[in-house]
Amino acid sequence: MSKEKKLVEAITSMEEDFAQWYTDVVKKAELIDYSSIKGCMILKPDGYAIWENIQKELDRRFKETGVENVYLPMFIPESLLNKEKEHVEGFAPEVAWVTHGGLNPLQERLCVRPTSETLFCDFYKNVIQSYRDLPKNYNQWCSVVRWEKETRPFLRSREFLWQEGHTAHATAEEAEERTVQMLNVYADFCEEVLAMPVIRGKKTEKEKFAGAEATYTIEALMHDGKALQSGTSHNFGDGFAKAFGIQYTDKDNRLQYAHQTSWGVTTRLIGAVIMVHGDDFGLALPPEIAPTQVMVIPIQQRKEGVLEMARKLKETLSKAGIRVKIDETDKSPGYKFSEQEMRGIPLRVEIGPKDMEAGQCILTRRDTREKTAVPFDQLGETAKELLASIQKSMFERAKSHRDAHIYDAHNYEEFTETIQQKAGFIRGMWCGNQDCEDKIKEDFAATARCMPFHDQEEISQVCVCCGKPAKKLVYWGKAY
Amino acid sequence: MSKEKKLVEAITSMEEDFAQWYTDVVKKAELIDYSSIKGCMILKPDGYAIWENIQKELDRRFKETGVENVYLPMFIPESLLNKEKEHVEGFAPEVAWVTHGGLNPLQERLCVRPTSETLFCDFYKNVIQSYRDLPKNYNQWCSVVRWEKETRPFLRSREFLWQEGHTAHATAEEAEERTVQMLNVYADFCEEVLAMPVIRGKKTEKEKFAGAEATYTIEALMHDGKALQSGTSHNFGDGFAKAFGIQYTDKDNRLQYAHQTSWGVTTRLIGAVIMVHGDDFGLALPPEIAPTQVMVIPIQQRKEGVLEMARKLKETLSKAGIRVKIDETDKSPGYKFSEQEMRGIPLRVEIGPKDMEAGQCILTRRDTREKTAVPFDQLGETAKELLASIQKSMFERAKSHRDAHIYDAHNYEEFTETIQQKAGFIRGMWCGNQDCEDKIKEDFAATARCMPFHDQEEISQVCVCCGKPAKKLVYWGKAY
Repeated sequence: MSKEKKLVEAITSMEEDFAQWYTDVVKKAELIDYSSIKGCMILKPDGYAIWENIQKELDRRFKETGVENVYLPMFIPESLLNKEKEHVEGFAPEVAWVTHGGLNPLQERLCVRPTSETLFCDFYKNVIQSYRDLPKNYNQWCSVVRWEKETRPFLRSREFLWQEGHTAHATAEEAEERTVQMLNVYADFCEEVLAMPVIRGKKTEKEKFAGAEATYTIEALMHDGKALQSGTSHNFGDGFAKAFGIQYTDKDNRLQYAHQTSWGVTTRLIGAVIMVHGDDFGLALPPEIAPTQVMVIPIQQRKEGVLEMARKLKETLSKAGIRVKIDETDKSPGYKFSEQEMRGIPLRVEIGPKDMEAGQCILTRRDTREKTAVPFDQLGETAKELLASIQKSMFERAKSHRDAHIYDAHNYEEFTETIQQKAGFIRGMWCGNQDCEDKIKEDFAATARCMPFHDQEEISQVCVCCGKPAKKLVYWGKAY
Repeated sequence: MSKEKKLVEAITSMEEDFAQWYTDVVKKAELIDYSSIKGCMILKPDGYAIWENIQKELDRRFKETGVENVYLPMFIPESLLNKEKEHVEGFAPEVAWVTHGGLNPLQERLCVRPTSETLFCDFYKNVIQSYRDLPKNYNQWCSVVRWEKETRPFLRSREFLWQEGHTAHATAEEAEERTVQMLNVYADFCEEVLAMPVIRGKKTEKEKFAGAEATYTIEALMHDGKALQSGTSHNFGDGFAKAFGIQYTDKDNRLQYAHQTSWGVTTRLIGAVIMVHGDDFGLALPPEIAPTQVMVIPIQQRKEGVLEMARKLKETLSKAGIRVKIDETDKSPGYKFSEQEMRGIPLRVEIGPKDMEAGQCILTRRDTREKTAVPFDQLGETAKELLASIQKSMFERAKSHRDAHIYDAHNYEEFTETIQQKAGFIRGMWCGNQDCEDKIKEDFAATARCMPFHDQEEISQVCVCCGKPAKKLVYWGKAY
């Protein structure tokens, strides 16, 4: 048992030190490796395969709404970045600058894209002339660079993978509709595929994106009670169009400015999955995005017929459309179990001489560790049912946990008490004044996560901070 | 007809000016747009969708051979790039340098990856310890940057999309096997999916990759008789492993150096497809990679029932698993035909009032412009057969053209005459001395494209250049 113990002991317990637990999991589950470039990560095969599964399913959902993929350059000339005032102020301090091409200094320095609004505007300016050219619903999958001072795997790194959608529309209404539509695509994806409940809402003026008229967000609650902004969708109105001169002639031959949106999610979603579903045994992946959904582990594999049967079961599962692997290494079964649990593989199949005699194998769920004996001829069907059940109960478990960590506060005393004693979202009314946001941030390092779409309850008439008349319900929280 | 004429006239004829024809096609077929960043292109929806189709099918073929995807940072510290001498000499003159992060100068400047051998070596050095850790068959899909002076859409740009596979093996034999295996994956893909015949072979010492022991290549012949290097696979031996210290303990507990390979193809393949299959009507895409395989074009679409029937036919084709669109714009049918041909859509379905009376629609092939009347109830089946037939005959046509442009030369007089009068590959024996390669390059701007695998014929005993005893058959040519 020494090897198994060693593997398990290598993770810090969640309760003891959540941050260290997280770092241990990303390393031990082989998702990430550190590189020689400070703040840049290497996505190892399992880490990248999760991203591929996210990408595939999101891309499908985007295309269903009429989105087309494109690819724009990774460099932005400094003069182009400078065109929209608020935008450049938001990003200039954290971009990487290219100053030399080959052996020669560049005439104008280029930044590596931190986001591509300016490039899309420059492109749209040329390709949009008439109302017939609208809408443009373009998206790109790429990496972006932000020169962050402090970094953490998946959550914040100097280079990260993402998608960025950029659309242009004839009317303000159409732009607003697209902004909300894409937020809902993200939210449904998180809940249905990542088994991760999210709160859909609007950001306050203080928290919105640099250059946007409005920013919508999905906020998830991590196991430690901190919030994670998991996806955002921005309505730019015609601000960028005016800065870049994106105009079209409408049906009545009048010149109009286009209305634009942008929306993105990143590999940060993988960090969210880890912190929502993981436990002291390691990573736990929802079956929908698990690179390997089932691991077949032979017991006493040197005994006659065991390996052959294990391979046969793998074949059966594969034919049932399941992503399955077999662990034929010479490690002990206990060690293999620990590894499979650490890597978050949702289901394992154990097969040994005794099971063979009984004509069955043992299926163990990663989430509940519950075991089921399954006759060989029912394996494919049962495994599919179990995977569906795991997907569902992972969502329910995460939702119960999230709901149990939402607290109401009616005044600053209650707010103070709650934020000092509990970890989670605090629902509190807000007057709409940024001073109150600033005070809460200063006092508790907490922020307005969002003003929810679906939760219009007025839990009080007055602002939780200043006591003046309240305008909006806000979910407050400490965030990653 | 004025609009149709305008659209068609906008392309220069191939015979008149092949380079201009090419530029016209990439623009008019809406594959590419120029960006504000000199030498960097924008891949528009159709251009990117072709790349997505290439990516999807190649990725599937890679994974069948046991390749796993990863993602490494886009930056390489200067000291890391400098570790392998030949490699840095090959790339240092053409990389883009990042010197500032945010407002501060970096301690060490970083280049934007021109290729990632050095990063993979740095990674492998840490993750390879034992023979159990081998092989590593990793690949990444990303963009790379090379600060080229002259650029052309798809063929040569400062940033381009590609995949780069990097593998590490226990033995030299295994590395060699993987190098050749991946070259064959590329070659089969080009022939089966891009309908583009290629010559598989080895590069000479002069033409091989910076730092490689051997480079294998696939060479295709463009319509104008110039060669295009379409994919390469490199065997590094243990050169990089020695420079980076990638060592493992073998089964007998001895320390050994790993043996490595790398291999890549780029968006250049799209340029190849254009120049192999295109004609004076524009782009012609093999059905396997065409974003839209069939365009349904209603004739007299305002007449009762026409649009409804056209939509029904689209539905039928979609259900048959075909990528199909319908052109419902208010342009004339003739203009729509020209657009569909310009965009290279392999098949069109015409449906008008007369066809409806006859219970049939007209299918027109893009490649031969041949028309077939097809009863409605046979549409799905017939369209699938026609697409398969187009795929096949596009390959055959390209192969006939290629084969008709391969010439033999037995001495320098023949070589000179051929290269001055013909365009294509010249087969000629070679003594193995670089002086002859240099002379041919100086005299005719032609290079040794490859020493073929499958063509071992000795067409003469002596070198086509110097007349000394010959060692190898070489395909010579002018190249993009």
